[in-house]
Amino acid sequence: MTTEAVPSYRLLTIQSHVVCGYVGNRSATFPLQLLGWDVDAVNTVQFSNHTGYGRWGGQRIEAAALADVLEGMERNSLLRQNRVLTGYTPSSEALGVVESFIRKLRAEKPDMIYLLDPVMGDMDRGMYVNPDVLPVYRRLLPLSTIICPNQFEAQVLAGQDITSLASLHQVLDTLHMTYGVPHVVITSLVLPADDMQKLSMQSTMPDGKPTMLLVGSSRRQRPWYLTFPSQGEYFSGVGDLFAALVLARFAEHASELPEPARASFEACVSRDASNIKLSPIERAVTLAVASLQHVLDGTRTAMEAEGQRLGIDPFVPTHLASVDDRVHIMRLRELRVIQNPGAFLHPSIHGRPRWLPL
Amino acid sequence: MTTEAVPSYRLLTIQSHVVCGYVGNRSATFPLQLLGWDVDAVNTVQFSNHTGYGRWGGQRIEAAALADVLEGMERNSLLRQNRVLTGYTPSSEALGVVESFIRKLRAEKPDMIYLLDPVMGDMDRGMYVNPDVLPVYRRLLPLSTIICPNQFEAQVLAGQDITSLASLHQVLDTLHMTYGVPHVVITSLVLPADDMQKLSMQSTMPDGKPTMLLVGSSRRQRPWYLTFPSQGEYFSGVGDLFAALVLARFAEHASELPEPARASFEACVSRDASNIKLSPIERAVTLAVASLQHVLDGTRTAMEAEGQRLGIDPFVPTHLASVDDRVHIMRLRELRVIQNPGAFLHPSIHGRPRWLPL
Repeated sequence: MTTEAVPSYRLLTIQSHVVCGYVGNRSATFPLQLLGWDVDAVNTVQFSNHTGYGRWGGQRIEAAALADVLEGMERNSLLRQNRVLTGYTPSSEALGVVESFIRKLRAEKPDMIYLLDPVMGDMDRGMYVNPDVLPVYRRLLPLSTIICPNQFEAQVLAGQDITSLASLHQVLDTLHMTYGVPHVVITSLVLPADDMQKLSMQSTMPDGKPTMLLVGSSRRQRPWYLTFPSQGEYFSGVGDLFAALVLARFAEHASELPEPARASFEACVSRDASNIKLSPIERAVTLAVASLQHVLDGTRTAMEAEGQRLGIDPFVPTHLASVDDRVHIMRLRELRVIQNPGAFLHPSIHGRPRWLPL
Repeated sequence: MTTEAVPSYRLLTIQSHVVCGYVGNRSATFPLQLLGWDVDAVNTVQFSNHTGYGRWGGQRIEAAALADVLEGMERNSLLRQNRVLTGYTPSSEALGVVESFIRKLRAEKPDMIYLLDPVMGDMDRGMYVNPDVLPVYRRLLPLSTIICPNQFEAQVLAGQDITSLASLHQVLDTLHMTYGVPHVVITSLVLPADDMQKLSMQSTMPDGKPTMLLVGSSRRQRPWYLTFPSQGEYFSGVGDLFAALVLARFAEHASELPEPARASFEACVSRDASNIKLSPIERAVTLAVASLQHVLDGTRTAMEAEGQRLGIDPFVPTHLASVDDRVHIMRLRELRVIQNPGAFLHPSIHGRPRWLPL
């Protein structure tokens, strides 16, 4: 009796759970399911809401309890996933449990696609987790297929700041060559003005929103970049959603994806026909950005309408708001994931990747 | 500053979570989200898989931890749900926490629609939870809008066996009048042969499958019944999915439902046009049964194909199988919830409710 089921599209995600709102597994699961992925979800915390609200109820899972869940799966031959996503993990002990688990899976399944989102901090806030997770994340790097750090996380992982195109190339090299990561996607990045000009980047998009820069790179291939309007700065769970969508979309051939994900894959390929063919990671990121922009548009519209009705300005910097007002603002800012299924099923692609200059 | 958002379709579900497979919140959440409900999910356990596998990893949530999550929601004004679903809760202490919570919500929101699924046991296995939950469930009954017990649970709640049409009417009366439940749906029921004849019920459906009997009843109205082919006996999570779908569909007017749920509501109403108008609970149950039959058809087809490929007979009684084989059988029997979105979005109605004879 073999233990493998028929060709299945099964994905494991290990992230946080909030009862209300959309971060971590709550941000990732519905879009993945909508795209046809059979999602197995391990929750590393159960909080009433994300911690950006300033107060919350609930618990983190202890490392031993996490190990117990994962061992239960293993004992029952439930480690059948061909894709794995890991995000925020509450402690270095819990992350160590994840590491042992990924190490075992990787040894058993050399073809497993593992997307590691090394959630540690950002340029505004610096490190917002205990720094003792860093060595664990570094040990996870060679086990990964794709990583999705932001600029801060890429710098911390590589041990080098990104202050120019030259140092950006060095950081990518370090992640590929020293740490053995096949695909790197730096999800948001700021370069000095003269480097931005080399990318022919305007500081604002045609719609007036500030331009965001994303950089992608595959080992031994030329890095590329994508620009898109910045509108994620008020929202939580954007990075979690992005990582899930990249993993959901990453494929050489449509047959590697469940049926609902294939239509947009093929649309993206046929769009390429007259042009340079996109690599699997370029295609996945292009589609993920398109979905994200769609969700953010829908979220912003709903948020502004609700804010107006309630007399709340959802754009007020939360550190200027009272504790109670902050909660109301954060609620308004929750991603409208459920209300925008079309963002995932039928994303409209606007920009396309270009080569990153040296 | 008010705390109410614009007309929202927000639903709270308090049930178990399994990493792999589809019971409890894992069975309920995706279909509810697909139908447009903004689902807030409190997980009462996190297990690797459901306990029917015979072995599992993971933990139940302690009553104090459950209270902490719910209090976090309350402190942050996150109790905005106009619908609530509760299912399996791991202990009478945890269920007591749910009771206090529901009592508070009900006092604040007289219009809240609360579906209570009193998960305690079934006719084959008897009581499979600690009997000390029974008094808590009885105290919850007057707070509910709809309850979905099976025959065993209805009997235990009412304190009376259902051995005939007459005693069935008495049990329904007790639940409505003594315990104040507005709507009762007994999800599966067996009556003596002569009573079955009064319902003009054949013991098998035209497709050869055994006929199942479901009985519904609203306070001070004539009870009704629905028959459908039995095919749920091998599967877990069927009752959880049914309860979620009834709650997702229950409405007097289409505007009470999120947009994706409206199409099937209106199809069901227009089907009635030339006929007797269905009550909200009849309509919800009719649509829920249709979705369930569709999912079960899809599950059975996939299960048989995979079983054949793997050389496993998924219909083997699990008590005759080795511990390892049992795990493989249970895996094959998992509901294909993700693979059948059409079951929820476009259910095909076959049967319709009829009056229950006296």
